[in-house]
Amino acid sequence: MDAKEVKVGLFGFGTIGAGVVRALKANSDVIASKTGISLSLTKIVDIDTKTNRGVDFSPATLGSDASAIIEDPEVSIVVELIGGAGVARQIVSDCLKKGKHVVTANKELIAKHGPELSALARENGARLLFEASVGGGIPILHPLLSCLRGNKIKRALGIVNGTTNFILSQMAETGASFDDILAEAQARGYAEADPTNDVEGFDAAYKASILSTVAFGKHVDAASMFRQGITNVSREEMRFASGLGYVIKLLAVLEDRENGVDARVHPVLLPKNHPLAAVNNVLNAVYIEGEPIGPLMFVGEGAGPSATSSAVIGDIITVATEGNCPNAPDIFNKAELVPVCDVDNAFYIRMRVEDRPGVMAEISHCLGDKGVSIAQVAQDTIDGDKAEIVWLTHKVSEGNMMDALEQIEALGCVFSVLSVIRVFGTK
Amino acid sequence: MDAKEVKVGLFGFGTIGAGVVRALKANSDVIASKTGISLSLTKIVDIDTKTNRGVDFSPATLGSDASAIIEDPEVSIVVELIGGAGVARQIVSDCLKKGKHVVTANKELIAKHGPELSALARENGARLLFEASVGGGIPILHPLLSCLRGNKIKRALGIVNGTTNFILSQMAETGASFDDILAEAQARGYAEADPTNDVEGFDAAYKASILSTVAFGKHVDAASMFRQGITNVSREEMRFASGLGYVIKLLAVLEDRENGVDARVHPVLLPKNHPLAAVNNVLNAVYIEGEPIGPLMFVGEGAGPSATSSAVIGDIITVATEGNCPNAPDIFNKAELVPVCDVDNAFYIRMRVEDRPGVMAEISHCLGDKGVSIAQVAQDTIDGDKAEIVWLTHKVSEGNMMDALEQIEALGCVFSVLSVIRVFGTK
Repeated sequence: MDAKEVKVGLFGFGTIGAGVVRALKANSDVIASKTGISLSLTKIVDIDTKTNRGVDFSPATLGSDASAIIEDPEVSIVVELIGGAGVARQIVSDCLKKGKHVVTANKELIAKHGPELSALARENGARLLFEASVGGGIPILHPLLSCLRGNKIKRALGIVNGTTNFILSQMAETGASFDDILAEAQARGYAEADPTNDVEGFDAAYKASILSTVAFGKHVDAASMFRQGITNVSREEMRFASGLGYVIKLLAVLEDRENGVDARVHPVLLPKNHPLAAVNNVLNAVYIEGEPIGPLMFVGEGAGPSATSSAVIGDIITVATEGNCPNAPDIFNKAELVPVCDVDNAFYIRMRVEDRPGVMAEISHCLGDKGVSIAQVAQDTIDGDKAEIVWLTHKVSEGNMMDALEQIEALGCVFSVLSVIRVFGTK
Repeated sequence: MDAKEVKVGLFGFGTIGAGVVRALKANSDVIASKTGISLSLTKIVDIDTKTNRGVDFSPATLGSDASAIIEDPEVSIVVELIGGAGVARQIVSDCLKKGKHVVTANKELIAKHGPELSALARENGARLLFEASVGGGIPILHPLLSCLRGNKIKRALGIVNGTTNFILSQMAETGASFDDILAEAQARGYAEADPTNDVEGFDAAYKASILSTVAFGKHVDAASMFRQGITNVSREEMRFASGLGYVIKLLAVLEDRENGVDARVHPVLLPKNHPLAAVNNVLNAVYIEGEPIGPLMFVGEGAGPSATSSAVIGDIITVATEGNCPNAPDIFNKAELVPVCDVDNAFYIRMRVEDRPGVMAEISHCLGDKGVSIAQVAQDTIDGDKAEIVWLTHKVSEGNMMDALEQIEALGCVFSVLSVIRVFGTK
């Protein structure tokens, strides 16, 4: 049987784009035999038409004019790998308006403009797929929308940023500082020259927003989400956490609640026996709890041209074989974020204080006053008149905890609160 | 929008069947809102129509006559949860011949009769789906057939039997014997009164066969597969393995090779830092390597009414929304098993020998003679004239290893070879 040709256009011929070109070529036989479809990459558009990408492709397909794809009625599927929410937004909009299906790996675009683009897709009988935007190659969005559809998904925890997971894993393994490991990550190409987007949790917040959309059918605003990065996670935190039986991970934390979605991104002290605790370095993982499925975890490479191209090609094949799905539910229903002050968490708090009798009592008083119950406390003398105290609390509302910390920081005996990290797996 | 009603018939109203009935009822709103479909369980057939299953259902739907479903033209989807390859085979055949789509959790049926039933489905414009047959609720078969289709899947490792994983995990954790933990597993309902099917690896071999079909598009015979159970894994093995940095897991091991499929089921010494090593108790996991995806792992509950009903309902929804897929490739292509003697493995071998000078040399000679290179060796004196030796070898062909073991067992100084376990993660 002759394979049916489907013409694909690609925007963005960087590392990921080159990976897609390479994988489409390498696996064209596999794809044709499994699907009966021959995927033909007929047009590639990038502002840079000169650089050698080290992949085999027909030079005539490459150009810098977006309309070459947008205006070509034969291109039915468009892959967007430009990134960001500027040019990409315009191009994706233009393609959807022409009724072209769009496959993208762009988490910022989907988190910020998913509702508008999804509506545009529906109006024009096109599909918008974005499996690669969360967890790289890990099949997570498609399973949630297909074989797990019969479940109520209640909760999701995700290690969704490889850069920060590499930094935290290496800090734990080597005892080195954040700055040293960040420099190593930059040297290896795991972190960008300006690492803000990763280490401050912006990237993870985009992915948390998309996970909420797909898992719960509720779209929340990434920019309004509570977000804490990992720049404050020091060697001391690594040492204390390990001694107490925890690892530190940057997590996207999601729960579907009656009054909205609790979605946050912050470092977490996770018990060493938690399934996510063993997911190290650049691996990503998403842990889900649903009814009736119970707990479920997906682990794999969350970035890079190989893993990402698997997800992109998977989406291309889905569209090429299924076409439009006119009855698919709208998953971008706007939802409110649960105010973070209403969320309960246990806390790890490290502070520097005067080393004299009565200090512990003063601080304990502030905590007790706001209903913060203490699970564990350890004190270290630093030099003659300074000490460090590490507190582990039981679960308490964020609001009460923040009030207590404000009071504590105002105490004369407290030099500074050095670190506040949420703790999972305690009562 | 009114949900479209789809009528479903259920064969087998045991624990799993009751779980499906419960979950369909509990999640009917979720399913209708996500799919636009109302799944209506109009007929249930079981030889036992009396027992109270503790679930809410309309008694009029329950009967013992299979034709009530087979002959009802309104029932378009049939769920088979009878188990085994006897009655179930007949019923599934009859339903497919009537053009009904069949969803089953029956690994024995699919491993033994998948090719014939799949052909029957194709001839009659029906679909045969069996997500629940491997890994319980874990979405593994559907992702391999959908979002991972663009990959060449090269290898798969699976912890696919919860009973044996519980036994091995508990032996490692508590230091108790196989018999004691088996008794506990039976008391908890994790093992059957006759545990043969689980502990001897038959169940895992069925699942290995299905994984080969779905991952590689190559169907291999489960009965011809090399299969070693866990009854020979003693407390000593647990202790030695742990001391050497390994855990012991019963694995389905699959590799797509040029001359066929290497598919086996046997215990494996797995390095403690392998992703599968942390998958304990009744959890299941499948670890895959593909190109371009790289490594990927799925973890979840591999059995039980809740997890299984998630997979069954996922399949029902797939059929209800997609209907038939006339162009789906035939994945049940008959393939040969690679002869196990041609496969290379490293080995752990424990033997009881005479405690006298020269014994180690005699055994080493037999090993060296067959090209078996030794990575590590440890000797313990048991009593005055008996000693135990544990060998870890480098990789060697199974054929050479078995020849060497035959020679060793014939040595006068060797009382018995107590245990032979394959080792992964060594050169």
